[in-house]
Amino acid sequence: MGKVIDFQTDPSKYRHWKVEYDGPVARLSMDVDEKGGLFEGYELKLNSYDLGVDIELADIVQRMRFEHPEVKVVVMQSAKDKVFCAGANIRMLGGAEHAHKVNFCKFTNETRNTYEAALADSGQNYICAIRGACAGGGYELALACNHLMLTDDSTSSVALPEVPLLAVLPGTGGLTRVTDKRKVRRDLADVFCAIEEGVKGKRAVEWRLVDEVIPNSKFDDVVAERAAELAESSDKPDVEKGIELKPLDRTFAEDGVNYSSVEVALHREGRRATITIKGPEGDAPADMDAFVAEGADNWILRCARELDDAILHLRNNEKELGLIEFQTQGDPERVIAHEALLLKNREHWLANEVLQYWKRVLKRVDMTSRSLVAIVEHGSCFAGPLAELLWAADRSYMMLEEFDGDNRHLATVTLSDGNFGSYPMGNDLTRLETRFLGTPEQVETLKDSIGDALEADEAEKLGLVTYAYDDIDWEDEVRLFMEERASFSPDAMTGMEANLRFAGPETMETRIFGRLTAWQNWIFQRPNAVGEEGALQRYGTGVRGKYDMERV
Amino acid sequence: MGKVIDFQTDPSKYRHWKVEYDGPVARLSMDVDEKGGLFEGYELKLNSYDLGVDIELADIVQRMRFEHPEVKVVVMQSAKDKVFCAGANIRMLGGAEHAHKVNFCKFTNETRNTYEAALADSGQNYICAIRGACAGGGYELALACNHLMLTDDSTSSVALPEVPLLAVLPGTGGLTRVTDKRKVRRDLADVFCAIEEGVKGKRAVEWRLVDEVIPNSKFDDVVAERAAELAESSDKPDVEKGIELKPLDRTFAEDGVNYSSVEVALHREGRRATITIKGPEGDAPADMDAFVAEGADNWILRCARELDDAILHLRNNEKELGLIEFQTQGDPERVIAHEALLLKNREHWLANEVLQYWKRVLKRVDMTSRSLVAIVEHGSCFAGPLAELLWAADRSYMMLEEFDGDNRHLATVTLSDGNFGSYPMGNDLTRLETRFLGTPEQVETLKDSIGDALEADEAEKLGLVTYAYDDIDWEDEVRLFMEERASFSPDAMTGMEANLRFAGPETMETRIFGRLTAWQNWIFQRPNAVGEEGALQRYGTGVRGKYDMERV
Repeated sequence: MGKVIDFQTDPSKYRHWKVEYDGPVARLSMDVDEKGGLFEGYELKLNSYDLGVDIELADIVQRMRFEHPEVKVVVMQSAKDKVFCAGANIRMLGGAEHAHKVNFCKFTNETRNTYEAALADSGQNYICAIRGACAGGGYELALACNHLMLTDDSTSSVALPEVPLLAVLPGTGGLTRVTDKRKVRRDLADVFCAIEEGVKGKRAVEWRLVDEVIPNSKFDDVVAERAAELAESSDKPDVEKGIELKPLDRTFAEDGVNYSSVEVALHREGRRATITIKGPEGDAPADMDAFVAEGADNWILRCARELDDAILHLRNNEKELGLIEFQTQGDPERVIAHEALLLKNREHWLANEVLQYWKRVLKRVDMTSRSLVAIVEHGSCFAGPLAELLWAADRSYMMLEEFDGDNRHLATVTLSDGNFGSYPMGNDLTRLETRFLGTPEQVETLKDSIGDALEADEAEKLGLVTYAYDDIDWEDEVRLFMEERASFSPDAMTGMEANLRFAGPETMETRIFGRLTAWQNWIFQRPNAVGEEGALQRYGTGVRGKYDMERV
Repeated sequence: MGKVIDFQTDPSKYRHWKVEYDGPVARLSMDVDEKGGLFEGYELKLNSYDLGVDIELADIVQRMRFEHPEVKVVVMQSAKDKVFCAGANIRMLGGAEHAHKVNFCKFTNETRNTYEAALADSGQNYICAIRGACAGGGYELALACNHLMLTDDSTSSVALPEVPLLAVLPGTGGLTRVTDKRKVRRDLADVFCAIEEGVKGKRAVEWRLVDEVIPNSKFDDVVAERAAELAESSDKPDVEKGIELKPLDRTFAEDGVNYSSVEVALHREGRRATITIKGPEGDAPADMDAFVAEGADNWILRCARELDDAILHLRNNEKELGLIEFQTQGDPERVIAHEALLLKNREHWLANEVLQYWKRVLKRVDMTSRSLVAIVEHGSCFAGPLAELLWAADRSYMMLEEFDGDNRHLATVTLSDGNFGSYPMGNDLTRLETRFLGTPEQVETLKDSIGDALEADEAEKLGLVTYAYDDIDWEDEVRLFMEERASFSPDAMTGMEANLRFAGPETMETRIFGRLTAWQNWIFQRPNAVGEEGALQRYGTGVRGKYDMERV
């Protein structure tokens, strides 16, 4: 699987999903093209999916918010007879390397979280109309919707058959949403996860697996009715027209990727990538009308899209680069001004969407299995949303005082109101609250510094950066850190970072990534699943997996 | 590592720890016997430990509460020069099978949790006096204490060198306690975990890694002073004399283990073990004086000790028995009466200790990586603490109405006040609250049934058991379940159960077992740690681990 995976797509290229827009209601139909697999060697039968199918879904969910703000209810359904979705394609999973399995699950989880949160974030409510078999990853697609409707007939059921069939977990949030969102009684959940054929009809409602079950003859009508009711009762303000998410301005080169406001430089010998974000070159739009007119060309939206794509590219296509270094260059005041327009107009649909998107991009950074370091050089603009990268990173290094021959403006960090609530992490705390869990009063103190361009000595004293070094020590210290990091075991780094980054409370989201995913990754290493005689390898051969029966 | 591991010990057998009792203060000195490893092939140098060392520690912690209730402060320290503790023995870990690594970490984690909670549960406060190197598992021993004192000299430091040295995690709670208990700033935690030689002196206090640092010359005095102060200010009531935890009445046989009130039957062909708990044969003691006089002979304490030992035996010595079946036989009213004496006298030190111990034993059941089923037959006594097993189990089956030729009393379930708060799970909810997370009003409704002997139809209706079957279906249904369970992949079961059992909120405890442990187990499968060229295998050879540098 050496091919480059591209996370950019648009409606003209979709092969697996169809969307019909009808005022406040959109119908999102899964209609996977069997021959449209991202890789060779498998067919996407029965609406089973691979990463390519999910990349389209993520694109749809994203465009729904920016291009179709008139939509208040999205009905997820299948365009195939007899099957809603058979889940992740097993031949694809069986043939995939461990790292691809892990990254595939991570991206699908992020997509599920995104449309699950669309109601709270943007007033777009995803409901699921299930006709036919809805199994494994198919039911996990449904579980991330907020209202589940199941056809009451002999072929329609929901199931999580991973454990009995494949010896792996329902790892795209399935187990966690069953216990924590659907709040299924744990012994019933145990029974449910052991039944290959799943649960149908009234029992699915009694066990809280779906919200309602409807006779086949009335199904379409009731679904339409429910969608109309939810659209009617929605408190999402009416918005007539969205903005177009135009294709990214992006160029791939041997040693990096260039976007309009983001530059990715690959240092393969040092096993590291540098992401440099360029601050805005122009002033912030005068008001939200001007912002809407700029649309996807606006710096703060463009930058989020480019950073998002860069992170996904590195995660999936540059696995040997274990360290991502964040740099910024530009005018911090302008960054603050661009963000301030949005913060001042939070009630405006587009201001809200851009802030919510920054929240999601920063969460994607948090969840990235790479060591992350922020390098605060002179000339940089770690301010507002870009300052969040300082605390998303595992550590940060900042230039202290003037450097010989460097005439860029002195390195500073600038806090904004946005840093105190607009970009919460998966644990529902801000990055500053997570950082100062032991000294919460420090978060209050920091509010006094909002808007100040804090130089290195002050930023260090306030705990905003890890280290500040002057011209004499800078180069050695940064180089030593990078060399050290590149020498550590990538797996130990992954495990350590997954623990150190998420102090404090847990949410369903952090449980999915921290607990469920960790166990799934463990199982994805176990011979009972992935060995030659393991269930995942043998699936479809007619021979059951052969298990070492020892418990750990 | 085929030898049977025995979790029973007593002070006459200790080889690795010394305890000196001095009124309200006990000094617990680690003095590991290099030649005293539980297995062949390694020496326990530098106060490094293996499971045998931890079994002694767990025994000490347990006896401290029952035999030495006069103790209010425990000072953990090292009896060796220059070293506090070097952590888990690496050669032992390197040579151990995956399952032993996992079970070793689980037991050490349970022991850490036990003395960490001793202050809240029993008023016994563990503090740690660190002189010399305190590294890896050594620092994790310290982290579970409530007050950490570090000598300020050139050889005394705290460190978590697992990542750089061994390519594994500080998996005995280390990472979690650094972020969630000590609340170390995450970038400092990242730095700390990358420094092989650790942190000493003032910086250790500034980074919140220890509570105080004290010059070597004054160290012993200040430690003694601090212990005296904490004992003085303790609100633990004075108790003059404890009760002796006499050796268990236990007999091993080929097909099981027999205790006085617990019987373990091994069904190897079915890969299952049956634990049958026998209810009390006599009446409950008249009052707590009578209870103290009975001491360790009392049924409710004896039963907890025997069940605890049985679980540990099965976990560590019978790994191929993937299903544990809980049965009880006896008079439910007597079980309720025995528990009622304790509930009525919660303020009595021994009543409290026995209730707290049942809480811990039941948590041990929750954390057991085996499928658990409760089989509620006629003649059984699932009442009060024993009823908790119904909800600790993954499912339960209950006999409905009379069975042909079975003249035992009808199967019943009896709730007590204890089920509503005395035995919280690791997530700090009761098992009933966790079970009815989606219908919390049901927990309130159940309070109306306290004391009623609920027959199967009612117990099923109230959601207390999964299935009730009559004489016609019983045998087939139970057999089918057991056969099915025995056919599933043990790893998939482990992962599934670790997710389904712990719905709802997370605590530091559940995070240690659910997040940290899962990542550690994953790393314990990765070639970078455990492969021939992995760091854990190469440790001590002078050659560094060789890593596949791909991130997942």
